[in-house]
Amino acid sequence: MVRAAIVGASGYAGGGLLRILAQHPQIEIGVAVSETYAGKPVSAAFPGMAKLSNVVFEGKGDGSRLRDCEAVFLAQENGKAMHLVPKLLANGSKIVDLSADFRFSDVSVYERVYKITHVAKEENRRAVYGLPELFRDDIQNASLVGNPGCYPTASVLALLPVVSSVDHNSIIIDAKSGVSGAGRAKFSLDYHYAEINESVSAYKIAGTHRHTPEIEQSLSQILGLDIAVTFTPHLIPITRGMMATCYAKLTEPIDTETLREHYREFYVDEPFVVVCDELPATKHTVGSNRCHIGLEVDERTGVITIVSCIDNLIKGAAGQAVQNMNLMLGLPEVAGLDTLGGQFP
Amino acid sequence: MVRAAIVGASGYAGGGLLRILAQHPQIEIGVAVSETYAGKPVSAAFPGMAKLSNVVFEGKGDGSRLRDCEAVFLAQENGKAMHLVPKLLANGSKIVDLSADFRFSDVSVYERVYKITHVAKEENRRAVYGLPELFRDDIQNASLVGNPGCYPTASVLALLPVVSSVDHNSIIIDAKSGVSGAGRAKFSLDYHYAEINESVSAYKIAGTHRHTPEIEQSLSQILGLDIAVTFTPHLIPITRGMMATCYAKLTEPIDTETLREHYREFYVDEPFVVVCDELPATKHTVGSNRCHIGLEVDERTGVITIVSCIDNLIKGAAGQAVQNMNLMLGLPEVAGLDTLGGQFP
Amino acid sequence: MVRAAIVGASGYAGGGLLRILAQHPQIEIGVAVSETYAGKPVSAAFPGMAKLSNVVFEGKGDGSRLRDCEAVFLAQENGKAMHLVPKLLANGSKIVDLSADFRFSDVSVYERVYKITHVAKEENRRAVYGLPELFRDDIQNASLVGNPGCYPTASVLALLPVVSSVDHNSIIIDAKSGVSGAGRAKFSLDYHYAEINESVSAYKIAGTHRHTPEIEQSLSQILGLDIAVTFTPHLIPITRGMMATCYAKLTEPIDTETLREHYREFYVDEPFVVVCDELPATKHTVGSNRCHIGLEVDERTGVITIVSCIDNLIKGAAGQAVQNMNLMLGLPEVAGLDTLGGQFP
Amino acid sequence: MVRAAIVGASGYAGGGLLRILAQHPQIEIGVAVSETYAGKPVSAAFPGMAKLSNVVFEGKGDGSRLRDCEAVFLAQENGKAMHLVPKLLANGSKIVDLSADFRFSDVSVYERVYKITHVAKEENRRAVYGLPELFRDDIQNASLVGNPGCYPTASVLALLPVVSSVDHNSIIIDAKSGVSGAGRAKFSLDYHYAEINESVSAYKIAGTHRHTPEIEQSLSQILGLDIAVTFTPHLIPITRGMMATCYAKLTEPIDTETLREHYREFYVDEPFVVVCDELPATKHTVGSNRCHIGLEVDERTGVITIVSCIDNLIKGAAGQAVQNMNLMLGLPEVAGLDTLGGQFP
Repeated sequence: MVRAAIVGASGYAGGGLLRILAQHPQIEIGVAVSETYAGKPVSAAFPGMAKLSNVVFEGKGDGSRLRDCEAVFLAQENGKAMHLVPKLLANGSKIVDLSADFRFSDVSVYERVYKITHVAKEENRRAVYGLPELFRDDIQNASLVGNPGCYPTASVLALLPVVSSVDHNSIIIDAKSGVSGAGRAKFSLDYHYAEINESVSAYKIAGTHRHTPEIEQSLSQILGLDIAVTFTPHLIPITRGMMATCYAKLTEPIDTETLREHYREFYVDEPFVVVCDELPATKHTVGSNRCHIGLEVDERTGVITIVSCIDNLIKGAAGQAVQNMNLMLGLPEVAGLDTLGGQFP
Repeated sequence: MVRAAIVGASGYAGGGLLRILAQHPQIEIGVAVSETYAGKPVSAAFPGMAKLSNVVFEGKGDGSRLRDCEAVFLAQENGKAMHLVPKLLANGSKIVDLSADFRFSDVSVYERVYKITHVAKEENRRAVYGLPELFRDDIQNASLVGNPGCYPTASVLALLPVVSSVDHNSIIIDAKSGVSGAGRAKFSLDYHYAEINESVSAYKIAGTHRHTPEIEQSLSQILGLDIAVTFTPHLIPITRGMMATCYAKLTEPIDTETLREHYREFYVDEPFVVVCDELPATKHTVGSNRCHIGLEVDERTGVITIVSCIDNLIKGAAGQAVQNMNLMLGLPEVAGLDTLGGQFP
Repeated sequence: MVRAAIVGASGYAGGGLLRILAQHPQIEIGVAVSETYAGKPVSAAFPGMAKLSNVVFEGKGDGSRLRDCEAVFLAQENGKAMHLVPKLLANGSKIVDLSADFRFSDVSVYERVYKITHVAKEENRRAVYGLPELFRDDIQNASLVGNPGCYPTASVLALLPVVSSVDHNSIIIDAKSGVSGAGRAKFSLDYHYAEINESVSAYKIAGTHRHTPEIEQSLSQILGLDIAVTFTPHLIPITRGMMATCYAKLTEPIDTETLREHYREFYVDEPFVVVCDELPATKHTVGSNRCHIGLEVDERTGVITIVSCIDNLIKGAAGQAVQNMNLMLGLPEVAGLDTLGGQFP
Repeated sequence: MVRAAIVGASGYAGGGLLRILAQHPQIEIGVAVSETYAGKPVSAAFPGMAKLSNVVFEGKGDGSRLRDCEAVFLAQENGKAMHLVPKLLANGSKIVDLSADFRFSDVSVYERVYKITHVAKEENRRAVYGLPELFRDDIQNASLVGNPGCYPTASVLALLPVVSSVDHNSIIIDAKSGVSGAGRAKFSLDYHYAEINESVSAYKIAGTHRHTPEIEQSLSQILGLDIAVTFTPHLIPITRGMMATCYAKLTEPIDTETLREHYREFYVDEPFVVVCDELPATKHTVGSNRCHIGLEVDERTGVITIVSCIDNLIKGAAGQAVQNMNLMLGLPEVAGLDTLGGQFP
């Protein structure tokens, strides 16, 4: 068994890691760091973990505990991981960082978008962007992976097979997210049950959301040219689940069935991508590491609509992090993840 | 007091009409027709009407009861109103039909889209499309108004002020609707609580939803040329509320504040349109006849994003129907509607 | 028009007062105090108030503004009103306090339960408990009313007609509340959307909730002896609405229909109490000042089950406060309240 | 691997069985019967099963397919299993029936409550009530198990450790259920999203719900005398989850901590019962086979309040069925169930 550490283990992404690793056949939880719950069992933060894990949260400690772990998951707010990563890399750990610290190949984009001075630029050069469907080979050889944001995961998986066949100036992504995406430590009127419930709202639209440049980085890399997309995130009254409805103008006419078949072939070997005959609903991906994709062509307008669904906390965070770590450790990519079932009702 | 009849009074739109008219200063409910609840008080279908109204539902009856009513609201499924309207018009009634029967100036579009042979083509020629913000003068002189669908109301109000300034081939409408929009008599797995809750799904996308040609009709009339839009409806887990997130490419650069000011001026005299500084949430329009609109320009992509919120059962159905009837009867347009407050939490 | 002041006008109860008074035929809003939103229009706190009210929030100010108002609603957290009330009473104002400060005839109960030293004991002696169905006459003559809590309102209205006919040691109240009852300024994990949604939990059970002694005070006054009840509040994932399911052992056998008829007669003149043939649902009281009550007798166990529903923010707060103020001012009791409709879907 | 058949495999309980058995280390799905989805893959009914199972639904077939399966789960509506069970028993199958057909030792109670003539009375005599915490030994030796209802499971587990220490005439169970408990094939206004959402309602109260005699049967067997309980089910707007809030008068004073310790000892060896220090929430049991129990004593009234939470579809249906089958087959009781994790947010 590989020993793993989780730093930031009492947040939502951390809770996902705890739950997945508690059942992982080849990775075990060595250290779970949470300042808030230091000294308490994991069931104090996640009552559903009672009888599933005996792990006790640790406070920051001296760092030596982390060094005993071959695999390290960093699940803290932005700007924290960059301080830990240099020592951990020197220690020989395999690291998946779930924050934005190591997602950008051009560190100046990170600094502009997140308004944080990057203190581990050297290490950032070694980081690989952790979308296995796009960078699997690089991830297998990486020691440091920047785990993608949830919106970029849903959006890029939707557009990946078709981005070269559309007018790259026409891409619009209208995304809908469950509230857990805001994180567990966000206490404000914005996430108060009584304000969110029975309502839908858009926020940080017209290119102002921080996931916009992350989406653009991936699509630009695929195309080999810099593109800009219109990205609109919405908050909807669900706890977990994310949908990206993506639009683009086709450059050549194609019918729905042909395009769907192209998607099926494109993703035929992907263990966690399902190309659906019907339009997908977020519900059926909740609790799993899968991305469900449906699509249709409007032949009147020449616009393709691609609907992509994930669990924002699994494929959009903890599950994808474990998928990346599996690849980095040379384990089966699906270990600990293939048994995570989607919901039935 | 004007006597009004409501046919189809136990559905959701009918319930909205009952509630609004119970408080209307100049219109009273004369007849409420519901086959399902015939002989029962309105509180049997809508327990919240207890102590608010003593009206008793009637079954179909002989029609003479309807003829006593100067104002008639038809709130049945598509294909019913066309059979009642000829006699009612002959009787001199003012009619607002909430179904799709009288929404299309080109009756062949209706027949193609709804797969129903229209039996009142003559009367359809006299019908006015009941979006007061677009056709107020015509409505004031009409005897028959086709009340707009909920998606077209939200979408056209969003696009109306800007449609002449955008690339008309670039219009995309990504809409999100509460489940009450499906109607009260729809019992299927699609509307079962356990399936809808904690999920979001798209349906009838890529031009296949029946509200697409209705939206296109209005926008084409404004522009004086035939256009096609990409329209994607989504079902989200709320009972009431609808958002249309609309996208279009600007033909000339403009900044957000200038465009917002244009919207403010465009709608300055409209009693039920609010142009917001912040992005709107559906919650704040629920229970009211108002449409809240927010917008931003993405100067990088030249795409304008307009977010429009309504209560699908009020401005999207019953409230707009009363607004139209007020206009037809020469009453103050806001009578019975201006006191309907939005929710506070 | 009577001029009214609202102190604490940007909370949920305050928002309810703003909305009700914006439509009240005989009371107008003179002053709306909110430190958070001082200088901003009410639509800044409640976007649904746009076009419904032009009132601008004031900060604390010098108090002279309050003195110009004949009617004062205090809607702040516990322990604040007691500091304002002495001056306001001296000024001749009619005051409804929505906090717990003036709900207890025995001020030592307040001090023990709320852990606040009462600084207006003299004034507390003049306060009347504002449940019109129990103390209407006293309220009409009062200058200071302590507006009941939401749980006590739902519970006492359920038990009032039967409390003398049951074993007073057997009363159990199992209550379910929407999350808005927690107030708008409560930001914690307890009210985070992602934690509340898709879950139900009990809290402060076994006599520890602060509404327990308030319920016991009313029931004890009716009976003329001190009783204790078992009270269990639950948080359920709805924004507005409250149900109290009340249990008690009958001392004499009685059948359901006879008991229901007794309830009907007991409440026959009450404008805001509806005794239902069917079991009520909270949905149908939301947005209204009404309490819907249903009941059944289990003849096998001799236990009566009474189900009582209110909107916790209307009959449980703002609506009842206006009802009390109407009585204090000699206005029709239902003014501004009878047109508030329940929801239709 | 043991081959298992599921009859009624496209309902919610059936979906739970499919998902659990897809990951079970020692049982595999041999046959999944669904008339509605015959010939389609399980992902047609449960899109979340894509890539998790290749099983294809069968229609009724000739019965020989069922006979090949050592283990049979019957998950149909009441009155169906009794027709299949005699042949299956003769065939030597181990059977868990999730309907009510084999839950009552006194078949006349079943016939009175369910209004169905029982056609397998002989077999009913051999049936064991499948609550492992109460009848583990009998289940291990049984060929036919009647799987308990969800309300009885939550209620009896709550009361089991204390029922002998309370006034057995004082037991009140106030239960709250998610809507999936109604089943997947229930299409009516009662389960329409727009009616259920944002509301709570009680139904079939005062002893009229069919789970009342099932609860009474278990408690009466423990006590050795016939008792009646007051049982009130409520429908709350969640998909999955069930809470039973149970009340009883203690016959001897006891404090909360002593009683809680008694519960801890009582359930110390139970793999799926968690006695909590804090009051439990349903959320944390969703997706797992666990029952979380919290409790407090109100020393003023002598009433104990016990709060019990389960996932109505797992411990309340499919999970408990697998737990029973594990026992019947001599497999580890927790096989396939211990890795089912509770939710983290």
